[in-house]
Amino acid sequence: MCQLLGMNCNTPTDVRFSFSGFTQRAGNTGDHTDGWGIAFFEDKGLRHFVDHERAIDSPVAKLIREYPIKSTNVIAHIRKATQGVVSLQNCHPFVRELWGRNWVFAHNGDLKNFSPKLHAHFQPIGNTDSEQAFCWIMQELWKSHAGLPSIEELTHTLRELAAKIAPHGTFNFLLSNGEALWAHATTHLCYIERRHPFCQAHLSDEDLSVDFSQETTPQDKVAIIVTAPLTNNETWTPIQSGELKVFANGQCLLL
Amino acid sequence: MCQLLGMNCNTPTDVRFSFSGFTQRAGNTGDHTDGWGIAFFEDKGLRHFVDHERAIDSPVAKLIREYPIKSTNVIAHIRKATQGVVSLQNCHPFVRELWGRNWVFAHNGDLKNFSPKLHAHFQPIGNTDSEQAFCWIMQELWKSHAGLPSIEELTHTLRELAAKIAPHGTFNFLLSNGEALWAHATTHLCYIERRHPFCQAHLSDEDLSVDFSQETTPQDKVAIIVTAPLTNNETWTPIQSGELKVFANGQCLLL
Repeated sequence: MCQLLGMNCNTPTDVRFSFSGFTQRAGNTGDHTDGWGIAFFEDKGLRHFVDHERAIDSPVAKLIREYPIKSTNVIAHIRKATQGVVSLQNCHPFVRELWGRNWVFAHNGDLKNFSPKLHAHFQPIGNTDSEQAFCWIMQELWKSHAGLPSIEELTHTLRELAAKIAPHGTFNFLLSNGEALWAHATTHLCYIERRHPFCQAHLSDEDLSVDFSQETTPQDKVAIIVTAPLTNNETWTPIQSGELKVFANGQCLLL
Repeated sequence: MCQLLGMNCNTPTDVRFSFSGFTQRAGNTGDHTDGWGIAFFEDKGLRHFVDHERAIDSPVAKLIREYPIKSTNVIAHIRKATQGVVSLQNCHPFVRELWGRNWVFAHNGDLKNFSPKLHAHFQPIGNTDSEQAFCWIMQELWKSHAGLPSIEELTHTLRELAAKIAPHGTFNFLLSNGEALWAHATTHLCYIERRHPFCQAHLSDEDLSVDFSQETTPQDKVAIIVTAPLTNNETWTPIQSGELKVFANGQCLLL
């Protein structure tokens, strides 16, 4: 299995604290060592880093931990291969363009007997079940809407699509188009919304703390979504099995 | 204007020597300081780095100069903005998926009165003439072939497409799908094919030499394509105006 990390904010924020704890699971506190990746939206642009080395000691991951890239939407993934060999084209997150927007997708889980008809433009480059599911979602979004829909409409369509894939197995995923971040759970996915008054947080996977009140303004809102809680002194909310949450401007929307 | 760098090899090769000289032009020996980018194919997978900082002092470019990423097809770009603001979505190279393959494109030049009808799946994310041209090429390739054609067929189609865009201005570009690398010139583009017996090369833009005979095997073949010669002790072949060259397995093909 794999692990997922997402961040959605109302102000460009750097993800180094969460990413540092998360990548401990790629060799130290976990065995998700078959490659990793991370994508950062900056406006409509995207920085996309993938690597087939372990995130705990990859030079590219070291750069990410040290270089403060500020973003409003981030999706990261550490992989433990179940389907598909260890290679760059099988590293999540995957990226496609639709309606003049980048779309980024990462999946944790296993899909059985899932061979959708991919008759449109979105074809897998690697050979994972995850990229197949992503291509099918992109195809069906494109078929369902003439142009970029509102977050509300997209959420409605994505709930229908996720419900069709989920019966094939475990389908925890994160998806973002730079405006919003969608999170669907089958088994393990939880989130936290940080806002004023900000507190100190301490990582679960290494002895590292940060006092967010020193790093933020009272207007800042940040949501973190992750496979298993990253901190041991905050309350994380589990996403229920079959539930699709949507985050925009740093908070979970009631859609 | 901008500058382009491409590498095509028969063996995964690291581009650090050429990239080091090339990025001197982003602040030291040239003023191409409005962002930069580089894409490395590893099999069908892709590492894609873009940054709106100057390549001469960007921490991401520093990683690329220090971390030996081995690839058979590389495309890099340093930007001096002519159309489109300085932002991540306007940094070359651009990437799209077609027929289950990554396609990477970078452009140097300016296109006037070029507003192609983009009626298929490939829509620009940023607002450069370059990305418009790339989307149109992808659309027309897709319309011309039912699936991934041979390098020869692709070269034939690309020559027709390039000839339709070139009258709009300056259209120096590099394009790769990981199998081959195409280079089209209007003004400045030249190349070198390095093979056994390998010699020492000295950069034009900084005082750095490498003895390729120490770094290679007799079977290795490497082609470098660049806006202006990178070394001052080798013979570079100019690509003529209106000419489209194709490189595969480290050599220029006679197609």
